[in-house]
This record gives sequence, C-alpha cells and structure tokens, in this order.
Amino acid sequence: MSSTPSPQALRTSIRSGEHGGNTSGYAPGFVQCNIVILPADWANDFLRFCQLNPKPCPLIAASAAPGDPTLPPLGDIDIRTDVPSYRVFRDGEMTEEIADISQLWRDDLVTFALGCSFSFEEALLADGLEVRNVTEGVNVPMYRTSTECTPAGPFAGKMVVSMRPFKAADAIRAVQICTRFPSVHGAPVHLGDPGLIGIEQLDLPDYGDAVTVREQELPVFWACGVTPQVALEAARPPFAITHSPGCMLVTDLRNSQLAVL
Amino acid sequence: MSSTPSPQALRTSIRSGEHGGNTSGYAPGFVQCNIVILPADWANDFLRFCQLNPKPCPLIAASAAPGDPTLPPLGDIDIRTDVPSYRVFRDGEMTEEIADISQLWRDDLVTFALGCSFSFEEALLADGLEVRNVTEGVNVPMYRTSTECTPAGPFAGKMVVSMRPFKAADAIRAVQICTRFPSVHGAPVHLGDPGLIGIEQLDLPDYGDAVTVREQELPVFWACGVTPQVALEAARPPFAITHSPGCMLVTDLRNSQLAVL
Repeated sequence: MSSTPSPQALRTSIRSGEHGGNTSGYAPGFVQCNIVILPADWANDFLRFCQLNPKPCPLIAASAAPGDPTLPPLGDIDIRTDVPSYRVFRDGEMTEEIADISQLWRDDLVTFALGCSFSFEEALLADGLEVRNVTEGVNVPMYRTSTECTPAGPFAGKMVVSMRPFKAADAIRAVQICTRFPSVHGAPVHLGDPGLIGIEQLDLPDYGDAVTVREQELPVFWACGVTPQVALEAARPPFAITHSPGCMLVTDLRNSQLAVL
Repeated sequence: MSSTPSPQALRTSIRSGEHGGNTSGYAPGFVQCNIVILPADWANDFLRFCQLNPKPCPLIAASAAPGDPTLPPLGDIDIRTDVPSYRVFRDGEMTEEIADISQLWRDDLVTFALGCSFSFEEALLADGLEVRNVTEGVNVPMYRTSTECTPAGPFAGKMVVSMRPFKAADAIRAVQICTRFPSVHGAPVHLGDPGLIGIEQLDLPDYGDAVTVREQELPVFWACGVTPQVALEAARPPFAITHSPGCMLVTDLRNSQLAVL
C-alpha cells in the first residue's frame, strides 16, 4: 500500500498553501465536510434549516460560539486556513474565490460542517459496489427536484439530489449500507422513475456530469449537499463563505465513526 | 382493545381441534412458522438447502433429535397436533390433508420451522406502510422467478418471490425495515422491472392472488417460503409433511425478538 497523508498532515499542507485543490481521494477513510460560514444573526435560521431538512443538510458540527474558528469535535482545525479553497458571497453574489479567509474573519461568524457523499461512496465501494461517477472519473450528476425543502426564515428551495445507477439488488444493498450513515445523507430518497421527483432528463444534470445508466439499472437518488448551497444563494445573506466545490474540510473523524449501527 | 388469544391459548384450541383453519391475524405480534417434516435420511440435505438459500428458506428452529416432536425454542409445542392443518406427501404427491399427524408420527421424523412473511408484514404495517394484499384482503401474489436456488442433494429449484407494490420512498423504507428481520426473508431481493427476474405478467401470479399496482408504484419482491415447498415437491422424498397454506405453527416468539438490531 502506498502511504497517504493523515488528515492532520493534509491540513498542515493545506494551511501552508502547499495543497490548494480538490480533496477527493485524499486521506481515505476520513470524513470530509461541506462548509457554510454565516454571520451570527443568520446562523440560527440556517441551523433550523439543517434540522428541518436533515437528509440534504446533515449537520456534523458547528462553532461553539460566534467568532470561534475552531471545530474541536472534528480535529485541530482553524477554519480560516484549513479548507483548500473558499468562495466568498456578498449579498448572494460570489465575489472572490480564495485560499485563506483570515483577513475576512469576523467576531460574529459561525461555521457549519455538513456531511458529504464521499463518506457513503467509500462505504459502497468497500462493499464491492460500483459507483459509476468514480468508475467514469467524473463528478456525480446532480439534479434540482420538485421536492420543496421545509423553509426556515429566508432559507428555502428545492431539494437537490445526486444520482448513482445500480441494478436492483445492488440498489437494495446501497439502501442498507447508507442507512447506517444518516449524517452523510443516509438512505436514498428515491429510485426508479426520475419524472416522479421532477427530473426531466437524466443525461442533462443541473450540476456535475452525466454518467452512463445501463438498461437493467435503476437510477438511485440521494439528498445532496448542494441543497444548502442553493438555499444559501436564494437567501442572499449580506456575507457568507463556503468551501469551493470539491475542496472540502478534511477532518480527523473516521467514516466508520459516523455509522449509527 | 379487543382481547386476542395468546399463542399458548390458540395452540390449545388448535390441539383440541377447536380451531382448524387459517392462522392469519391470530395472536398478533407473535411469530408464525412454515413447517416441513422429513425423514432423518432426507433432513440433512434439506438443512443444507436452507443454509445455502437463507433468504427463501430462513430456518428459525429444528428438532433437537429425530422423532422428537417438541420445539422448545418456540414454546411448549407438540408438532403432531399444534398446526391447524397438515399436508402429507408420499413420493412427492399430496395424499392427505389432516388436522393431526399423531397417527403418522415416526421415530425418524425431523421438523423444520421456517420464518414467514406475516412477521415482516406486521413490521411494515406498524411503520404506517400500506401492504396491498392486506388492504385488498387477498393472498399475497407469488411468482416463480428465473433465479435458481443453490441445490443441496435432491433439493433444488427456482426461487419463488412474493410481491408488494410501493411508491419509491416507501420501498426504500421497506428495505430498511425488513433488513432488521433476516429470519423472516429479510430485505427484498428485487424491485422494479419484473422481467429482469423472469416474471412475465404481474397480473398472473403463479400462486396467491393478483393485487393492484398503481402507476407511481414499483413492484417490490421478497424471497418467499413457497420456495422450499417447491424444492420439496421436486425432490419427491418418500414421505413428508408440511403445514397447509395459511395454517401456520403459532409460536411464543415475538416478532420483535427476530429483529437483529
């Protein structure tokens, strides 16, 4: 086996600016998180949005207090430097994409770390299932559905789902595997006919890349972490920071620690 | 709540000949079993068949020794009298359907008690899912598939499945619920296109009754306890006894005790 960096070593290299890109495939076995950072006066509504919509917005950790840049439950983390790339939004518009937010940090900022599909994809692969977007080396296809999230204050919007095709027996197995991991989106929300959740064309995803769906396969749909990003963009807070797509916070939590059984 | 007989009281009434028919709906909450009784020189192959095909043939208990008519793990049972109706097979042909097998009992007979779908249907209903064959008051539709069981000696044949239709989200929930109950067929073996497992027409089941499948529903297929019966008929042992369809052994085990988690 080739040696892979520990999450601590990877974060050190991210913190120093040495590693600046995608974290997919790095520190295998460890949880990677979506990040949303908001002013305290917007944080409570966002927290409620996550609690009301746990499948697309599975909250793994949040700041202990406004202005605190650490996330002790996830490791020795400084959220201002430990994500490879950040997107900064002002009044709902992305204004910068930067590698360090130390200069932008404020005493009122609250960080949210949300579960990500990397964890359950690893569990599916470990069970011998084929994950098509991994096989084809592309981003998972994602679709805006007709399913409304439960709104909380200004946060609202349609649920976004990711899709992975499986034969029926493997789809059933995928439900069993992902049920163990509610904090990384849990069991699929739909399978079979995409039209029933408002998806017109599987080969035209709203985000990510299309993947091959073979004749004997069912499309299987999971609630997706793009959902809170869409809700965030719709809410148009005066200031917000997120990770850049694919450039996640790498934590010290093992994926297996997220299993509820 | 109306009072329902305990499993012990129901067995007493069956033993005395007072209750002679179907056990469906009696002693709710308690496990009911399919019964197969074979001469000892056929029992080992049947046991291997069950072990090799646990989804259609989930073995819950077997005789401690040939000729022993008790099944202590399941309650105070005399298998010669405690099933409401038995079918007797000689050289693979059914020769009698009787309410008591005391006169036919032999020192070499071995009893097998297999899990039955009543238990998981109860778990589905308890979760608020609609079980169509229950709603429509008919027997569940069952189909011979193209899937070969793993043979053991003379025991072989195609897997038989039962079908219950669900919307996708409920099908996913049904997978989660039934995964907890491997000893009563466990998770479904297939969902979606019936043709992929060799079923030509959903409205023409091989056993039981057809049920309505609505437009937005997926047919969901479970391995079925008719499978060992079909294998038994194909093996044509010189002597065998089974329960009559729907007339099960009612045990003291609670359905919830079968849950693995």
